[in-house]
This record gives sequence, C-alpha cells and structure tokens, in this order.
Amino acid sequence: MISIHNEPQPSDLGDVRVANRAVVLRHVRLHSPCSRADIAARTGLNKATVSSLVTELIDQRLLRETGLTENRVGRPATMLVLDGEPYAALGLQIGADELVAVAVDLGGNRLLTWRRAFAATTVSPTETLRALAALARRAVGRVTAQGRTVLGLTVGVPGLVDPSGAVPLASALGWRDVPVAAQLRTILREPEFTVAVDSVANLAVLAEQRHGGHAGSSDLVHLTGGLTVGAGIIAAGRLLRGGRGFAGEIAHLPLDPAGPSCACGHHGCLSALVGLPAVVRRLLPDAEADGPVTDYLPELTRIVALARQDDPVVCGGLAEIGRHLGRGVAVLADLLNPETVVLGDHFAALAPWLLPAARSELAARAHAPGAGGCRLEASTLDTAGALGGATAALATVEAGRLPAG
Amino acid sequence: MISIHNEPQPSDLGDVRVANRAVVLRHVRLHSPCSRADIAARTGLNKATVSSLVTELIDQRLLRETGLTENRVGRPATMLVLDGEPYAALGLQIGADELVAVAVDLGGNRLLTWRRAFAATTVSPTETLRALAALARRAVGRVTAQGRTVLGLTVGVPGLVDPSGAVPLASALGWRDVPVAAQLRTILREPEFTVAVDSVANLAVLAEQRHGGHAGSSDLVHLTGGLTVGAGIIAAGRLLRGGRGFAGEIAHLPLDPAGPSCACGHHGCLSALVGLPAVVRRLLPDAEADGPVTDYLPELTRIVALARQDDPVVCGGLAEIGRHLGRGVAVLADLLNPETVVLGDHFAALAPWLLPAARSELAARAHAPGAGGCRLEASTLDTAGALGGATAALATVEAGRLPAG
Repeated sequence: MISIHNEPQPSDLGDVRVANRAVVLRHVRLHSPCSRADIAARTGLNKATVSSLVTELIDQRLLRETGLTENRVGRPATMLVLDGEPYAALGLQIGADELVAVAVDLGGNRLLTWRRAFAATTVSPTETLRALAALARRAVGRVTAQGRTVLGLTVGVPGLVDPSGAVPLASALGWRDVPVAAQLRTILREPEFTVAVDSVANLAVLAEQRHGGHAGSSDLVHLTGGLTVGAGIIAAGRLLRGGRGFAGEIAHLPLDPAGPSCACGHHGCLSALVGLPAVVRRLLPDAEADGPVTDYLPELTRIVALARQDDPVVCGGLAEIGRHLGRGVAVLADLLNPETVVLGDHFAALAPWLLPAARSELAARAHAPGAGGCRLEASTLDTAGALGGATAALATVEAGRLPAG
Repeated sequence: MISIHNEPQPSDLGDVRVANRAVVLRHVRLHSPCSRADIAARTGLNKATVSSLVTELIDQRLLRETGLTENRVGRPATMLVLDGEPYAALGLQIGADELVAVAVDLGGNRLLTWRRAFAATTVSPTETLRALAALARRAVGRVTAQGRTVLGLTVGVPGLVDPSGAVPLASALGWRDVPVAAQLRTILREPEFTVAVDSVANLAVLAEQRHGGHAGSSDLVHLTGGLTVGAGIIAAGRLLRGGRGFAGEIAHLPLDPAGPSCACGHHGCLSALVGLPAVVRRLLPDAEADGPVTDYLPELTRIVALARQDDPVVCGGLAEIGRHLGRGVAVLADLLNPETVVLGDHFAALAPWLLPAARSELAARAHAPGAGGCRLEASTLDTAGALGGATAALATVEAGRLPAG
C-alpha cells in the first residue's frame, strides 16, 4: 500500500506537548472513566508524561477526577473523566427556512438545540447575518449564565466557503462574495471566542463521524439536503477540502440533460431533481399557487403525511426522486469508495420512501461489485450541520491547545 | 479550519527512528547536496540525531558523501547526496496494447523504459501475468547486472485493485477476481523483493506528483486514458483510496443517456465517450473493418496525423470528445476541488485538439467561480503508470524502513 504525505514530520520537531495533550484528551473522551495508568498503558505515553499532562488538564478544568476505583491488580486508582462543566461550543446553521443553534459541552453533549423560523432566501445576506448573530448572542448568554466559557462558534452555510470564512458563492441563498466570518465578528463586536464558517455539508459529516450511527468510520459521506444538495466527505479519516476548500460540491452533477431547469442555467442537475424545493415542486404542484414557497418544512410534513397514507402520486414521485438520488450516490461510490453515504435533512425525513429505489439504483449503477461495499443509510442525527459546527468549535482544544484566558 | 484525524498519535509512541530516517531521506532528496548541519537546521532534528541517522544511511548505501564544500560560516562541511547506485525499483503497467516496464534508482532517475506490444484484451489473465513476469525478469536481470538490488516491483492494472493486490474487476481487460499479486509472486518464484499491485490511475498520479509538471501539488488528479478512463486522486497530499481501495472509478460517470452503449450495460458513460476504443471507433470508422481493433497505438498515430492536417471530421470529432471530457472534469472539479487535473495517455497525445473544448466546458460546467481554480493540463510524462509503479516500490525505503538483507 502506498501512502504519500506532503511532509514527513520529524518526531522531535513541533510541539510534542500539544500532541500528547490531544492524545490524552482523546483517550479520556473515548474510554472514560479511566486512570492515569490506563492512559499510559493504552497510549504508549510514559507514566510521568501522563501525570504531568493530566495535572495540567485538571488545572484547566478540561479533565476532572471522579473518585477511586479498585484496580484489577494493586492499589485503587483515581479515575478521570472529561470536565463537562466549564466550557461550551456553539454551532449555527442556515437551514431551508430556519436558523439553527446548537451548543455542546466538551464531551459533545448537547446543552441546547434551538430552531428559529427564518427565510434566508428572501432577505439580504446582512439581514441573515444579523439574525444569526442575534441567535448566537442569546445562546452565548444562556451558556455563560450556566458559568461556562464559550470556546468557539462555527456557522454552516449551504454553499462554497473559503479558508478565510468568506462565501464566494451560495446559489441556494443567492449569495455571492459575502465575507461571513469577518462580518459576524464585527456584528458580535470581536468576541473572545473563535468565529469560523464552513459549508453545512462539511459540518454535517463531522457531526456524523463523531455522533452519528456511523461514528468512527474513516470513509464517510454525508449528503445534506434542504435548499440544495451538498456532500461532506471524510476520506481516510480526514475532511476532504480540496485546493481552495470547495470540495463536496455535488448540486450540479448533470444527471438528466432533458430534466428540469436548474438555477445554474443547465438542466437536470442533481439539485434540480432531488433538492427540497424541487421535491416540493414535483410532489405538491399546488404549493406554489400563492407564490414561491419559502416555508419548506410544513410542505415536507405534508409530503410525509401523504406518503404515510400511501398516496400513489406522492409515493411514485418519491420513488423517482429516489432513483435520481441513487444515481448521484453511485457517482460518489465510484469516485470516493466510501463505507457509508448518510442521507441528511429532507432525505432522512423521506428515507422510508426514497431508500428502496435509491439503493437499487446504487447497486445497478456503481461499477464495483456490491457498490464497493458502500451502504446508503438515513442519518439519525437532528440538526447535523449545527451540531457539527459546535463539534468543530471544539477542535482547537481537542488538538491539544489550551483554552485562552 | 477543521482537520480531523482518526487517531492522534502520541509522539513518544511508535518507531521514532524510522520516522526521522524518512525525514532525513526526504530532505536529501529535495535539497541535495546538503550537509548534516543543513539537515539539522532545516528539519529541526538535533545534530546528534542527524549524525547517527546519516551514518546508518551511509552504511546502508542509501546516502553517500560527495566531498567538502565551503560553508558560508565556519569550517568546510561534508556534503551528502542520495546514493543512486546500489538499488533499483521496478514498475510495470498493462497498457492499451502493450506492456511497459520502468526501473528507477533511489533518486527517481529512470534506469530503463521498455515497451512490449501485447494485446491483453485478447488473452487470458494468466497469459498476461506470464508475459508481465517475463518482462519483469528481464528488467530485474538488467538492473542486477548493474550491481543493483531490486527493492520492489509494482504493477499497474486498469481496473479495481483491492489492498491484497487482487483485482475483483477490470472490465477493460475482461478480468474478474484475478489474484494478480499472489499469482505474480508465484510465477516469479517468491522473489526477495516486494510485489505489489495498484490501479494504473493511482500509480500515474503518484508519478505525476513526484515527477510531473505539477510535482508537489497536494490536490491533484491524473486522468488516465487508454482502454478505459480512471482517476488517480491526491487530496491534501495523500492518495485517496476509499474504504476498499476502489476510489477513482470514473469510467462509468453517466454523461449522456442517449449516448453510445458501454460495456457496463448502460449508455453514454464517460469511458464510452472518451476512452481510446471509443475515440478510435468515433474518428476512424474504417478501423474495425477487419474485426475488432487490438492495436490501438497505430490508430492513435493516424488520428494525430489527420488532426495535424486539419482534417475537418477528425478535428470536429475531437472537439466533441473534448466537450465530453470537460464535462467529466467539471464533476471532478466540483467534488474534489483539485488544483490541477492532468490528462495522461491518449488524452495527452490528443491534447492540442481536446483541450480548448474541454477547458471551455470545464469553465461552463463547474459550479465554483473559475472552476475553483482547477487547471486542466496535458501530462508531460511518458509511461506515467509504470513510472509511478517504480516510484511506489521505493515507498518502504522512503518511509524510513531499511532495505532487507
């Protein structure tokens, strides 16, 4: 097997202590409660190093001791767990017709999940950012009232996000060249915590890899739905970003040159066939009678209700949408060979009716036998993008950097 | 920016010496001639560590000293270079109508490039493997006669290759479930050196990243041509393999449901539109008059000659093929956001006539502005797959493991 890296890193270069702190934190996150001796035995770090790191992490209130436990051999050991109390991280997401905020503690436990109706497609980017900032401020207020320090905030946008946190293009929102991170920092008056921006798809796959039904999978794709379709890709355990951070754009995969027109000017793109607006338009022809739909979630609820009643038009339409979806997933399976493709958002809500057709199309279209082992599943996560944003905001601490202040 | 890894590695675990050896070898490869002090200064390794590693690498004849040079300050330093003499690595490739063998030394310099006419599509897998083994034996004989030890051999197959070196499917060759690495080892009577197998596309992008016009790029795709079309993908500096090693399958990207039929049973797949057999069929309708074509390279030469004469039918056909190719590349640009997509094999030979149409289609179809910075270029490498195989066979030594024996 070949594995090439850009730069082999010498092992006595760089901040060894930071790397080792990350190892200890990760071990406790995955195996708590555990003792200092457990950590040393399982990570290969020597006992003195572990003791010194644990002392520092307890001082910073990232770890805490939780009493004694009989060891199998020898004297009782003090057990360690993550300290869930002092810190929180926030994630926000611009959804189809809502803004979402999620806060988690260091262990990834949800502290709050808020949804606020908001039709971002009908207002200016600045109005949306003001509404996001207002939601963020309330969430910060809530967690700081609990005595927590906010470590960071990450916003998920359905579109292209560059490494500076600017959005060159988010077609589904009608955005072009919006400096989201910079504007949010200004509106929030340069807060102490980090403010970052990423694509909803990247954040959702991060949540999926940490908290979802396929947590720990090293080759995973999350297909986000909603206003458009995006792919968050984890390959060999790492988020695939590409040269400029734009990887995972799948909305305009050309599937059917004779298909419906797409906002991009072409026809039959994946998004124009299976995105939430396309699904509503296809299955509820009356929905646009009073003008363009901006309230998608009630329409989605109507579709689910009709499907549950075995409405033949809706069920037939969903099978057709499932086939298009399956063809798109087959392209992902061929190119990326993921272990699992997880369907989020409206795809998850409609999964009982989409999955049979999508799976059989995946099997028929993917080139490798058995689709290269790729399974297609519905996400079990709620608000994956915002949860992923909160998870991402923990990354600095999880990488072994100590919280500021 | 989020970067998640499967397992943070504690820095005092694992074989530090192996990692540091890799760092020293890489530094010398990129910056030779250089002194021990240069290595220490540039890598961050301490001087005693560098001295000890260099002594060991000289003993193994991986490095050699090359006299003294005046330093800018202080006494003259002994300069080090890679020792090109004692070792060789081999790469083989099953091409459209030929077998190719390449041998390189430790510095990646070519020691031999052999092409042997061979129509693998017309014979059994075992016959092809016997012919490959015969070619390998002759190449081994040649380099051992030069006093070199063979470090390894890697074979590129145009199809799916699993981590054991077996080929579950190579449609272009008509292969299914062929244990290529195991059979080759048997035919070669269990040689001392490693025998590995990978997809031609993976090996070609490895060669491209090491030796090509875009060497060092961390987000790079090589699109191999020949009997089929495959994508070798380097993302964030690493080969993208997927869960079972099947990533990069792009031959059956559905581009035109009304297009020509494909061996896979569907219509208008990328390979059925732009693969070498499709190109010959499209541009030289007389080529199949005497039965199926198995000699592709002379037909390719005829196409190039006609295009040079501005033959309107051939030039028009190449522009159309270029447009299909550009649509395929746009999908890669959207999903992977590479810095460069490099066209190999027959695409490179036909590049002057394919590229204008392919580039304009890429610009029109990719969603990110300016195709996300993705450039589309012709490869400047000859026999990239075999060269990549030879490069891959150096990987163990480059990763810091000492040669056996």
